[in-house]
Amino acid sequence: MSTTKTNPGNYFEDFHVGQIIRHATPRTLTVGDAALYMGLYGPRFAVQSSDAFARTIGYPSAPLDDLLVFHTVFGKTVPDISLNAIANLGYADCRFEKPVYPGTTLSTVSEVIGLKENSNGKTGTVYVRSTGADEKGETVLSYTRWVMVRKKDEASPAPEAVVPALPETVAPEALAAAVPAIDVSRFDTNLSGSPFRWGDYEVGEKIDHVDGMTVEEAEHQIATRLYQNTAKVHFNQHTEGQGRFGRRLIYGGVVISLARALSFNGLNNAFHLAAINAGRHVAPLFAGDTVYAWSEVLDKAELPGRSDIGALRTRLVAVKNRACADFPFKTAEGGYDEGVILDLDVWLAIPR
Amino acid sequence: MSTTKTNPGNYFEDFHVGQIIRHATPRTLTVGDAALYMGLYGPRFAVQSSDAFARTIGYPSAPLDDLLVFHTVFGKTVPDISLNAIANLGYADCRFEKPVYPGTTLSTVSEVIGLKENSNGKTGTVYVRSTGADEKGETVLSYTRWVMVRKKDEASPAPEAVVPALPETVAPEALAAAVPAIDVSRFDTNLSGSPFRWGDYEVGEKIDHVDGMTVEEAEHQIATRLYQNTAKVHFNQHTEGQGRFGRRLIYGGVVISLARALSFNGLNNAFHLAAINAGRHVAPLFAGDTVYAWSEVLDKAELPGRSDIGALRTRLVAVKNRACADFPFKTAEGGYDEGVILDLDVWLAIPR
Amino acid sequence: MSTTKTNPGNYFEDFHVGQIIRHATPRTLTVGDAALYMGLYGPRFAVQSSDAFARTIGYPSAPLDDLLVFHTVFGKTVPDISLNAIANLGYADCRFEKPVYPGTTLSTVSEVIGLKENSNGKTGTVYVRSTGADEKGETVLSYTRWVMVRKKDEASPAPEAVVPALPETVAPEALAAAVPAIDVSRFDTNLSGSPFRWGDYEVGEKIDHVDGMTVEEAEHQIATRLYQNTAKVHFNQHTEGQGRFGRRLIYGGVVISLARALSFNGLNNAFHLAAINAGRHVAPLFAGDTVYAWSEVLDKAELPGRSDIGALRTRLVAVKNRACADFPFKTAEGGYDEGVILDLDVWLAIPR
Repeated sequence: MSTTKTNPGNYFEDFHVGQIIRHATPRTLTVGDAALYMGLYGPRFAVQSSDAFARTIGYPSAPLDDLLVFHTVFGKTVPDISLNAIANLGYADCRFEKPVYPGTTLSTVSEVIGLKENSNGKTGTVYVRSTGADEKGETVLSYTRWVMVRKKDEASPAPEAVVPALPETVAPEALAAAVPAIDVSRFDTNLSGSPFRWGDYEVGEKIDHVDGMTVEEAEHQIATRLYQNTAKVHFNQHTEGQGRFGRRLIYGGVVISLARALSFNGLNNAFHLAAINAGRHVAPLFAGDTVYAWSEVLDKAELPGRSDIGALRTRLVAVKNRACADFPFKTAEGGYDEGVILDLDVWLAIPR
Repeated sequence: MSTTKTNPGNYFEDFHVGQIIRHATPRTLTVGDAALYMGLYGPRFAVQSSDAFARTIGYPSAPLDDLLVFHTVFGKTVPDISLNAIANLGYADCRFEKPVYPGTTLSTVSEVIGLKENSNGKTGTVYVRSTGADEKGETVLSYTRWVMVRKKDEASPAPEAVVPALPETVAPEALAAAVPAIDVSRFDTNLSGSPFRWGDYEVGEKIDHVDGMTVEEAEHQIATRLYQNTAKVHFNQHTEGQGRFGRRLIYGGVVISLARALSFNGLNNAFHLAAINAGRHVAPLFAGDTVYAWSEVLDKAELPGRSDIGALRTRLVAVKNRACADFPFKTAEGGYDEGVILDLDVWLAIPR
Repeated sequence: MSTTKTNPGNYFEDFHVGQIIRHATPRTLTVGDAALYMGLYGPRFAVQSSDAFARTIGYPSAPLDDLLVFHTVFGKTVPDISLNAIANLGYADCRFEKPVYPGTTLSTVSEVIGLKENSNGKTGTVYVRSTGADEKGETVLSYTRWVMVRKKDEASPAPEAVVPALPETVAPEALAAAVPAIDVSRFDTNLSGSPFRWGDYEVGEKIDHVDGMTVEEAEHQIATRLYQNTAKVHFNQHTEGQGRFGRRLIYGGVVISLARALSFNGLNNAFHLAAINAGRHVAPLFAGDTVYAWSEVLDKAELPGRSDIGALRTRLVAVKNRACADFPFKTAEGGYDEGVILDLDVWLAIPR
């Protein structure tokens, strides 16, 4: 006798607009997770690295890295949203709304906000708005994601197409919530690693983050399990060896974290990832590849009511197996240059 | 001048029935160990993952994973019991007697409870009862293990054979001690990932845990060092490359932890490993192999005085490089199927 | 428009004697770092492994491993001192001055104490005295290091040569500061793993630490990122594949930590690394290599005013891909034996 108590994941037909999904498993993040995050990516932003530095400027203690929070909130959605996904198509309108400290328990709820069957009748795009909350029920993070999901039965009728309107960027007034008022006079730029503040960056400026980081199978697997992300393609060489790439695919969040950590070299004081306006994983990353990154300043914004910090809108581009001195991005035809793996449009908070 | 201050390990002749061995090194487990355990195996049981979930049902905070405790208690015994072992033959009567929280210091004492020389005169089986205690001296875990150990001198006489009587299973009345009374009405099955409780499982039911996990050298080495397990075969490619497998052998506890983590998919609410009735490592695992697992419900038991939780006795089978949809186990001749690496008979606690 | 907000590192001409460099990034070490350190190297010294053991003898809790502190303090200096270094030539006069507990924030300041251009006119040696302090500003560690650094412009004039006088060893009276008065009667040698105390070791005694540990790329990368050490040679296969070794070079601190962890087997009670008198990385280590270690007792010293602990001066030698039963060290010609990778002269504290 065998039964199906295991999770088969949801197929395209299983989703309907307005559907609310409460995801398992709530997860308490600790200083243990922070240490492992440090070991896996090597970020060096002073606020997240040092309780003493964080306290000096007004935090109660060092907050957790924003992307550790993002990946944890995201990981919970995988068994319900993307277990049968073919591709993670994009992110938008991701807002970090509250600082998260060790000891916080995160859980995630998603709402289906759009559905559109593809013309091939085999797949469709599912749009979800996912919200991560702490143990008090307060939102720490929310974002929209859309994924291409298989239909279980190609003969099932297409739902009415609903494609949500997505903002091109998060509005500056929505950016400050996760940073307490800081005493910017005590933000020691010797300790933070660079003298450059908000006023020192110009729109159009490009920064080659210089360093490269080679990724190992053990590293991305440990990272992705830490987020309790269960997508099979990241872990199973026995099946992926027979799959489309012949090998395990690295979770896109690993690329984001590596690029963000590399971006310290040139954006040292941009300590808070305040929003992800839009993001695309342009090409896959595999173990043995080396990740480089560069940034372009797309915009600058003052934050309403805040004289301590300002916002830089940057494009963070990750590239594999190719240095970024020439800022590889797009071809004349509009496609991405060879080697580009991530195109992420973000808002960063940085002292003024 | 050289001396032998290093540990040569014990040989078969060094053991006698009734011998008590207090093992080094006491070890304080923390949230750091819990995070690393999460990154290495990816368990998703809500009680161990979330302080908030644990508190809601009646724990003071999230307890540590039972197998992190087991491996830590076990690891201490290696330098004294199995440094000169040829094979870890089996486990039995393993009882988890007290919940263990971050900050607890574990130490281990073993008693030799049986000895039997093999007919070849070169090796013998040593039976030990090992007990892990916290810093108050209270037992958190005890188990019997038997290993095949080399003789130092083949000419030394065989001891009187003593083979301890081992219970086939741990009695249900011994199972509840490590779980405080829980408020099962507050056990949120949305957050735990599955609606299935004790009453939903039937004896004879088989569950394919579906997912597969490929193991890397770095992963099993980090895990095994975390437990301060010093068995040479796990760490030294320079010697193992010349050894019987030509490569490092993965600690069997890694297999147990992976299989247990995979079993979440289908046994989501069976949050506590209450006992290991019997266990055998049927075949070795190596880096690059992919681990799958399936379970069969062997028995069900009510727990005396407890209406909150019940017990499921399951066989947890781990298999390498082979999916488990057909539940590989034994051949018609009684041997194990190709690919089976672990045959573990356990009691699980699960809400009623 | 591109700008150079990234750190180009300092070249030989950028240094001058008396220069003070305050390094980024302050870093709070936690139980998470301690757990990861355990998983990466597997040390088993009881004082650092167990809060209960540490408290019993007089510590407030288990201190962090001395080398975790060293690597963290050291890592901060890399972006300013050795980003353009060709070789890390040596260490001397390294003193551990205060115990460091989880929760401590470390930062580092260096003073340039010597400069000497090489006769080739292309490079020079920079001597720095680096001091790690906690969040109260109290020194926890200080050491002298010298590195060979490239000149930016070979035509720039040589500075006046200043070569600091370095002590051959740290004086015994400077060794005890990081160990509180301990109650040596409560130092349980069953739990610490060996009966051998200060009085049991003799000058000239050699100890083969027996065990070997194979290092994986993921392991050394995780370790080195944990210390926020950014030296490119450890992380970038894309460039190192074209470099002098054709592969990533393992951070020398990983070798030191592995050798120290292996040295537990034979020096079980020498729980505190009190000083590094001198150290050289004799040859490089690469992933896949297996590290062995042996020690020789060079000297013994009583510590002024302390009857609880004494000091052993040892040479800790790490060797790759070769067991140490014959204590490989130097050839008749005075060079190092094939396989020797580390020659470290240290003071260890051990109960009397």
